[in-house]
Amino acid sequence: MEESRPLDALNAARNKTVMVELKNGTSYVGKLRAFDIHINIVLEDAEERQNGEVKRKIGTVFVRGDTITIISPGVN
Amino acid sequence: MEESRPLDALNAARNKTVMVELKNGTSYVGKLRAFDIHINIVLEDAEERQNGEVKRKIGTVFVRGDTITIISPGVN
Amino acid sequence: MEESRPLDALNAARNKTVMVELKNGTSYVGKLRAFDIHINIVLEDAEERQNGEVKRKIGTVFVRGDTITIISPGVN
Amino acid sequence: MEESRPLDALNAARNKTVMVELKNGTSYVGKLRAFDIHINIVLEDAEERQNGEVKRKIGTVFVRGDTITIISPGVN
Amino acid sequence: MEESRPLDALNAARNKTVMVELKNGTSYVGKLRAFDIHINIVLEDAEERQNGEVKRKIGTVFVRGDTITIISPGVN
Amino acid sequence: MEESRPLDALNAARNKTVMVELKNGTSYVGKLRAFDIHINIVLEDAEERQNGEVKRKIGTVFVRGDTITIISPGVN
Amino acid sequence: MEESRPLDALNAARNKTVMVELKNGTSYVGKLRAFDIHINIVLEDAEERQNGEVKRKIGTVFVRGDTITIISPGVN
Repeated sequence: MEESRPLDALNAARNKTVMVELKNGTSYVGKLRAFDIHINIVLEDAEERQNGEVKRKIGTVFVRGDTITIISPGVN
Repeated sequence: MEESRPLDALNAARNKTVMVELKNGTSYVGKLRAFDIHINIVLEDAEERQNGEVKRKIGTVFVRGDTITIISPGVN
Repeated sequence: MEESRPLDALNAARNKTVMVELKNGTSYVGKLRAFDIHINIVLEDAEERQNGEVKRKIGTVFVRGDTITIISPGVN
Repeated sequence: MEESRPLDALNAARNKTVMVELKNGTSYVGKLRAFDIHINIVLEDAEERQNGEVKRKIGTVFVRGDTITIISPGVN
Repeated sequence: MEESRPLDALNAARNKTVMVELKNGTSYVGKLRAFDIHINIVLEDAEERQNGEVKRKIGTVFVRGDTITIISPGVN
Repeated sequence: MEESRPLDALNAARNKTVMVELKNGTSYVGKLRAFDIHINIVLEDAEERQNGEVKRKIGTVFVRGDTITIISPGVN
Repeated sequence: MEESRPLDALNAARNKTVMVELKNGTSYVGKLRAFDIHINIVLEDAEERQNGEVKRKIGTVFVRGDTITIISPGVN
C-alpha cells in the first residue's frame, strides 16, 4: 500500500465543501478552490462562523496558512 | 480543468476592492494594488475598520503578510 | 543499536489511533493516515475533544503542524 | 500596465513621512529612511504614539519587521 | 578541549529519563528515545505533569520542537 | 544619493548608547557592541528598564533578535 | 579595530556563569556549556528562578533558543 501525504487529503477535497478553522476561533465553510504548500487556502461561496453560528456570507475568501488550525472535509 | 493556486485568487482581485483582516481584529477595505508571496499587501483608498465600523480613512497602506488572517474580494 | 528519529515514532503509528493535542487545548483522536516533515497530520474517523470530553465527530481532519504540541499513540 | 509589488509602495515613500504600526499597538511617525525585504524599517525624526497621542520624540528608530502590522504613507 | 554543542547534551541523555517543559506549562517526564535538529522529541514511558503533579501516564509521546522551552536530564 | 539599508543605521550606532525595546515591554540601554542580520544584539554597560525606571545594572547583555521591537540610538 | 559579532559575546562566556531569561519570565543561572546559531543553550549546575527567587536546582538544562529573550554573563 502506498503511503499518503497530508496534502493528498486536501487534494481529494478540492471543489468540495470543507471547514477551515483559525487560531482565533473563527471558521469558514466553503468550496475548496485552491491551496498551496503553506496551506494558504481559497474557498468559494464561503460562510464565516463563530461558535457554530453563521456570522456572514463572505463569498470568495483567501485564508493565510499560518492562521489555520484544522481543515475538515467532513463538516458542513 | 486546470488547478488553481491561492495567489490566482489574489491576482484576479488586483485593482478591485478587497477586505483584509488582521490577527488583531482590525480590517482594511481598499483597492488591491500589489501583493507578494509573503502575502504582503498594498491597498489604495483604504479605510480602517474595527467591529465593522470605519475608524479612519488611511489612503495607501502596506499590510505585512504575517499579520493577515483572511483576504476577501467579496466584501465591501 | 541504530538511533531512531522522531518521525520513526509517527511512522510506527501510521494507521493506528493517535491523540493530537493543539496549542489551543483542543485534541483530536483518530486513525493516523498521513504526516509530513512539518508535522502536518491527517486523521481519519476523528473525534474532537475539549477537556477530555468528546465535542463532535469530525471524520477526516487535516491538522496544521505548527498548531500541534504533542502526538501520542498511547492514548484512546 | 506593469504590475506593482508591495515594496514599490515603500520605495515611493522613501524620505517621506510614514506611520508604522506595531502588533503591540504602538505607532511611530517619521521620515522613512530605509527598509529591507524583512520590512525592517528605519525612521528619522520619529515620534512614538499610543492611542493617537504622542508619547515621546525618539529621533532615529530601527523597527524590526516582524513586529509591524501596517505602514502608511498617508497618515501624519 | 573540544567545544561541545547543545545537541551533544541531548545525545548524552538518549535512553535516559528527561523532563521536557512546554510553553503552555505542561511537562513530560520519560525516557528520551529520539530527537532531531528541530528539537522534536520522542519520549517513552512518559508521564504528563502540571504544576509538578502527575496528570496521566501517556506512554510514547512525540513533542513538537517549537512548543518546548527546556529539556533537563537532571530531573525526575 | 545612495539608498541606505536598515542595518546601516545600526552600524552607525556601533559603540554608542542605544535603547533596545522588547516585545514584553522591558528595555535595555547600553553601548551597542555587536549585532547581526537576525538583529541579535550585544550591549555593554547595560541597564534594564521597566516603564522608564531602571530595574538593575546588567553589564553585558545578549538580546535575541526575535524578541526586539525597536532599537533607538536617540534615547538615553 | 575588528568588529565583533553577537555570538562572540556568548563564546567569551563559555564555561562561565550566565543568566538566561525566557519569554515566560523564568530564568536559569548556570555555567554556559554549549550554544549554537539558533541560540539553543546548554547550562550546567543550573538553578531555575522566578522573580529573582530560586525555585529549584535543575543541574544540566537544554534551553530552546526561540524561547530566550536575553543572556547575560554579568549576573549571578
